[in-house]
Amino acid sequence: MFNCMMTKELDLIYQELAYNLALKGKISCYPNPAVGCLIVKEGQIISLGYHKFAGTAHAERDAVEKLQQAYPDTWQEKIAHAHVYVTLEPCAHYGRTPPCANLLADCKVAKVTYLSADTTDKVNGKGVKILREAGVEVEFVPWQQCLNLNKDFFALQAQADLPFIKVKIGASLDSKIALPNGNSKWITSLQAREYVQALRWQSDAILTSAKTLIIDQAKYNVRYEQLPQEVKNYLAVKDLKQPKVVIFDNSFLLTGQEEIFKHHQSQNLIIVSQKEHPLANKIPELNFVVGYNSHQKQDLEKILQILKQEYALANVLVETGSSLTNFFLEQKLFSQLHYFMAPKILGSGVQALATQEKFTQLEQCLTLNLLYQINLNEDNLYLVYEQK
Amino acid sequence: MFNCMMTKELDLIYQELAYNLALKGKISCYPNPAVGCLIVKEGQIISLGYHKFAGTAHAERDAVEKLQQAYPDTWQEKIAHAHVYVTLEPCAHYGRTPPCANLLADCKVAKVTYLSADTTDKVNGKGVKILREAGVEVEFVPWQQCLNLNKDFFALQAQADLPFIKVKIGASLDSKIALPNGNSKWITSLQAREYVQALRWQSDAILTSAKTLIIDQAKYNVRYEQLPQEVKNYLAVKDLKQPKVVIFDNSFLLTGQEEIFKHHQSQNLIIVSQKEHPLANKIPELNFVVGYNSHQKQDLEKILQILKQEYALANVLVETGSSLTNFFLEQKLFSQLHYFMAPKILGSGVQALATQEKFTQLEQCLTLNLLYQINLNEDNLYLVYEQK
Repeated sequence: MFNCMMTKELDLIYQELAYNLALKGKISCYPNPAVGCLIVKEGQIISLGYHKFAGTAHAERDAVEKLQQAYPDTWQEKIAHAHVYVTLEPCAHYGRTPPCANLLADCKVAKVTYLSADTTDKVNGKGVKILREAGVEVEFVPWQQCLNLNKDFFALQAQADLPFIKVKIGASLDSKIALPNGNSKWITSLQAREYVQALRWQSDAILTSAKTLIIDQAKYNVRYEQLPQEVKNYLAVKDLKQPKVVIFDNSFLLTGQEEIFKHHQSQNLIIVSQKEHPLANKIPELNFVVGYNSHQKQDLEKILQILKQEYALANVLVETGSSLTNFFLEQKLFSQLHYFMAPKILGSGVQALATQEKFTQLEQCLTLNLLYQINLNEDNLYLVYEQK
Repeated sequence: MFNCMMTKELDLIYQELAYNLALKGKISCYPNPAVGCLIVKEGQIISLGYHKFAGTAHAERDAVEKLQQAYPDTWQEKIAHAHVYVTLEPCAHYGRTPPCANLLADCKVAKVTYLSADTTDKVNGKGVKILREAGVEVEFVPWQQCLNLNKDFFALQAQADLPFIKVKIGASLDSKIALPNGNSKWITSLQAREYVQALRWQSDAILTSAKTLIIDQAKYNVRYEQLPQEVKNYLAVKDLKQPKVVIFDNSFLLTGQEEIFKHHQSQNLIIVSQKEHPLANKIPELNFVVGYNSHQKQDLEKILQILKQEYALANVLVETGSSLTNFFLEQKLFSQLHYFMAPKILGSGVQALATQEKFTQLEQCLTLNLLYQINLNEDNLYLVYEQK
């Protein structure tokens, strides 16, 4: 129908639309990968869908169900011979939902274009095989952006010594996290803070320092009502799990009277100190990691290993003050930097990123890759980076 | 064909695609507005286009010509009764190209949806009128994003005392413009620097301080070969105009031997100082603005007025060191902030944004609106803000 040039251009547009759909589900679909799907028939977009929440329809099924709702009688006819664009290889396993590869094969679509490979054991080519055996043409157009969106998913599926570590920062355009007087309420927008609640909800643990926890009187819990609506649409209050909290306290600042002790059960708190902590006698239900100096890279690595191996913390959110945050970055002990940037200029105040080392050459600096970006209300940008 | 829900969703997708097309032309279409156009027939995207360069086809014509090329014999039949999405009201005036409103009417399209109003005298409803009189259905769906993209265009069409002032900053993620030793080559990517060349090319003048000019040995000229390819595709070397350079030099640092004097004709340089400048005798072809203290807001405003009224500088790019840059921001004497952000963490060094005032409340800080964003190579973000 189209000449070749236009076909290629449209192909790119469809791929980009599928990616944009995937991105819409990213904050809520955890721990599943974010996936978007577009169904095109004779040059018309006939349906679209994305994965919204673990246990609900995958992107392909979401798109098919949407078509079913729109055309209860004729959807089968409409989808037959269609071209499906999907950002990840269709799944081949019976999880909480039946496999998407079978669904698409049953729908008799003509062609499936997928944009990133699902290398996890459950899929890894099996989806493609099901489709091909059913006579569906399958095309793989590897698109790094689609992989970048799910690096956390793939990392968490793989074996690793250390937890997957997300460092979270909320800062102004000039990279300040507080005014000179310490005032930081609020630099980022309400929606940005809702996203931080979602990051907590996604995490096995939040990692912080006793100092920050005391200064901020931080609770480090997930407040259901403050979660993004996309999450609340599917998450029942009763299903909300609180993350554990890991507290670095070499100086024995914690007394047991802090806010955190009121909002978490003692067995969900893990206190890390070089020498035995005085609270060990006072609150024996607490967990302690003793013997490591968190100010040294090797010891910090060891602590993180213990958190992964002894406490099964696979996914840790570093949400703390500027010095510990910067230590994680400087030591390159992080998987991703989740940077919320508000369109404000504070002019002076506490710098978000002020590492100890003084570089003389730009090549020495930490360089990052932008994995994905979500534009939030009030022009706050949610930027997710990894080390280059 | 579609039920209502899907139609609405597709409408939004088409609008967004038209916007994305407009954005593609933003860096090269100056001084014209950036416009994107999508043509949809019976649910199929049949063509797309955008305005690339002043004097070349407008977005609507670009899309029509693309269709003509693809279907030399049947394009008229294809476009008849189509639905056109365009980010700005179709033009009604004969400029270097005939009016787009007439073109679309002649093509017998069924409907035109436009996403922002062209309030300039030449159009201002006339495009809509031409279309309606030809029996074309016209729908206005105001979309702030499309207006935001062309704020510079609309501001430059209007009367104003002051020039349109773009402040340019190239910084790291932690908002540093140089390492502690002053090394800043290069924080931003090659493409970001090409975009800065394009900003210079778009400007009537570059404004800087003698100090920065001397330290950086800056030439402040446009280097044709370093312009973005999008610009070079249409701009002939011979048509490249160099911006004037305005130099603030209260301390009489300029000797006439600096690089800048080798790369600009003297009559294109404007030197601003409080007292009469010693170079006035030495190089009489230079321009001088004397009697104002650029460190005071009222005087700075007066200087800018003179630049606009006496030197006809309507569009000024502030591209200078951190203290003058910050003074413009602090005094709110700017129209837009053009912020190039590289995914690097310098950790220490010269802060891009370090205003003098110390705030105690976040409400006192400068808050910005993000107008638009272009993602450049090497994950550099080009963010364009205005004051909220």
